Amino acid sequence: MAHRAELIAVGTELLLGSIANTDAQLLSEHLAELGINVLYHTVVGDNPARLREALELARTRVDVIITTGGLGPTYDDLTKQTICEVFGRKNVLHPELAQWLRELFAARKRPMAESNLQQAYLPENCTIFHNHNGTAPGCAFCEDGVHVLMLPGPPRECERMYRTGAEPYLRALSEGVIVSHTLRIYGKGESDVESMLREKIAAMSNPSVAPYAKSDECFLRVTAKAESAEAAEALLAPVVEDVLGVVGEWVYGVDVKDLESVCVAALKARGATLSAAESLTGGLLAKRVTDVPGASAVFLGGVVSYTNGIKNRVLNVPQSLLDEYGAVSEPVARAMAEGVRALCGSDYALSLTGVAGPDSDERGNEVGLVYIALAAPDGTQCRRCTFGKRSRDHVRMQAVNTALDLLRRKLAAQD
Amino acid sequence: MAHRAELIAVGTELLLGSIANTDAQLLSEHLAELGINVLYHTVVGDNPARLREALELARTRVDVIITTGGLGPTYDDLTKQTICEVFGRKNVLHPELAQWLRELFAARKRPMAESNLQQAYLPENCTIFHNHNGTAPGCAFCEDGVHVLMLPGPPRECERMYRTGAEPYLRALSEGVIVSHTLRIYGKGESDVESMLREKIAAMSNPSVAPYAKSDECFLRVTAKAESAEAAEALLAPVVEDVLGVVGEWVYGVDVKDLESVCVAALKARGATLSAAESLTGGLLAKRVTDVPGASAVFLGGVVSYTNGIKNRVLNVPQSLLDEYGAVSEPVARAMAEGVRALCGSDYALSLTGVAGPDSDERGNEVGLVYIALAAPDGTQCRRCTFGKRSRDHVRMQAVNTALDLLRRKLAAQD
Repeated sequence: MAHRAELIAVGTELLLGSIANTDAQLLSEHLAELGINVLYHTVVGDNPARLREALELARTRVDVIITTGGLGPTYDDLTKQTICEVFGRKNVLHPELAQWLRELFAARKRPMAESNLQQAYLPENCTIFHNHNGTAPGCAFCEDGVHVLMLPGPPRECERMYRTGAEPYLRALSEGVIVSHTLRIYGKGESDVESMLREKIAAMSNPSVAPYAKSDECFLRVTAKAESAEAAEALLAPVVEDVLGVVGEWVYGVDVKDLESVCVAALKARGATLSAAESLTGGLLAKRVTDVPGASAVFLGGVVSYTNGIKNRVLNVPQSLLDEYGAVSEPVARAMAEGVRALCGSDYALSLTGVAGPDSDERGNEVGLVYIALAAPDGTQCRRCTFGKRSRDHVRMQAVNTALDLLRRKLAAQD
Repeated sequence: MAHRAELIAVGTELLLGSIANTDAQLLSEHLAELGINVLYHTVVGDNPARLREALELARTRVDVIITTGGLGPTYDDLTKQTICEVFGRKNVLHPELAQWLRELFAARKRPMAESNLQQAYLPENCTIFHNHNGTAPGCAFCEDGVHVLMLPGPPRECERMYRTGAEPYLRALSEGVIVSHTLRIYGKGESDVESMLREKIAAMSNPSVAPYAKSDECFLRVTAKAESAEAAEALLAPVVEDVLGVVGEWVYGVDVKDLESVCVAALKARGATLSAAESLTGGLLAKRVTDVPGASAVFLGGVVSYTNGIKNRVLNVPQSLLDEYGAVSEPVARAMAEGVRALCGSDYALSLTGVAGPDSDERGNEVGLVYIALAAPDGTQCRRCTFGKRSRDHVRMQAVNTALDLLRRKLAAQD
């Protein structure tokens, strides 16, 4: 039977709303990949009585408990002590961790307050999870058939420790190996994708195919369980092929991070360069592309032309076009893309001009109307999009995603 | 005694990690302002048995239960039905809501599936919360001294309904009125701020002062409770004055949204304009400024000069400076700011050049080294910052915040 999990986050800052419980989201996503069913998320403050009560309840209803937070050196970090009390384990000093902490502080040339040694205490006979991004180790043990895992609260520490410590621990619990591939989709919604694949999805159990929505895009996860990774991959390959046969037109990558990474990689592979001229998106496209480490090899730069003056003076958009058609128009989008391509000397150039809202523009163009142009060595294409009256942020996000998808398709078509 | 609350989110998508529970963060922050103690966050899937169990537990330990999600028209939206069962209320059709739904669909010229009428069912004798951003109304009732509030899951709907429906309901529970002001701080960490104010904070109870950390900044919330809003404001005024006397140097605004809003407002008030030249931040500053509705009145545009070629050709940074000092240097930062100011014809111009990471640059400049220049009518200033080897995202965020704070201080100093 599949394992059932509860995530218990410990931290008053969560109950005050200072931060969102992103650890729970991250862990839930990863646990789903392992085939572990997450049934509950619980958040309690830095309060031993309420943490104790949450743990007592959790052990009656799941067989995997993962706590996040409360492992640090300050007086309000009570997770380990409370877990030891509930599960009847001793909290003992692990000398190798004390040694590690001393060396860590010495290497950083900082004095170590004795309170830090609290972090070297963990339940006896546990599996230690080392912390590569901080000073608080985590751990796991099993008592009465319930696996208890403790991870640190800060998201960077939690994510890294999950990957290096908790995930291998949890994989070992499962008989066999679970492998999954993610097909990222842009331009088709989750419900459309689901209905195109409904019969296939219903007919499958191993591998399984599941669609997920994610802000402006969606993805399909294809998961197989087998005795070995090779056997799982052998099960997966024909299913991925089969699914691509139906929805491949909208799949921008398998096991890729996002549209910008795919575009940067595709440009790199072709030795090609990109520039951008942005009006309504105000730099968001450039920001997204330069989020990708190594983007400097392909992204030369861009112009945020928020006013007609800049469109004319910097991008050489003829004043007559601006006067005749207005800034939000196909001729101006085309001139912006061609202008920034010439200015930067890039192979490809994207431009975006439109109405992000909250109000229509002075020519009465509605919120959500966006023109996106792509200038390439073999000519310029332009697309008119109506993204509807969602929020300003949403219109801008859709505009950038659509522009990146246009570039991706253009580059793919050149092969 | 202060009310004690539990937030119960209903939705399998949360347990799959498709989205984070941002509703819980938002509500927690607002409830703290009202002086309501949030003791637990709980998340369950679209599963009536587990929701029932969570509700049964919650009614034994808190006197305010707020659910989010599960109010829509599809079969997995079970919150109302389950709450009615647990609290022994009838789920009845509210004809005025049915009428409202029919009119809403008619106005949108869309046919209404009968399943939508499920949304017009609410517990009998409840306070209805209207939904201004969607089709699912919410509500509140009190049973055995426990207040139960139901809000929709989509964050936009949840936030708006909280403000228009739930907050007035909850304020009415409290004797007296709670008013708070938020002092936003940049350039000093939470622990520094706390230690500067420790004695004052400890000596106060009404008004109270509490510091909070928030990504790269922090804020102080000053809260007073009194018989009327006027009386609360009268209590608050001298305390805000007093706190500003200690930490005012780092306070960029009271009851403001963020640094970019403050900068846009300050520029507007002075009839001044801004442009930006960005290297390592790749458009993030322009994006942040243009996130502010109405930014087009003050932000003319910018250049993302990701390569030396663009710095030279578009921004007129002399090639000799780039050769002699490298792109990450004070002379180049100054030339970038002055170049984009001349190009765009703006009153003020910001430039950012530095190393975002993950690797040092080719001259051996370390990750986190950033030069930020501000060109103004009366000359150009430049600041050298070392933000440390945090993530790429973090370095870029700190760089943009520091640049905006520099501009804010410059504009404030002109008064």
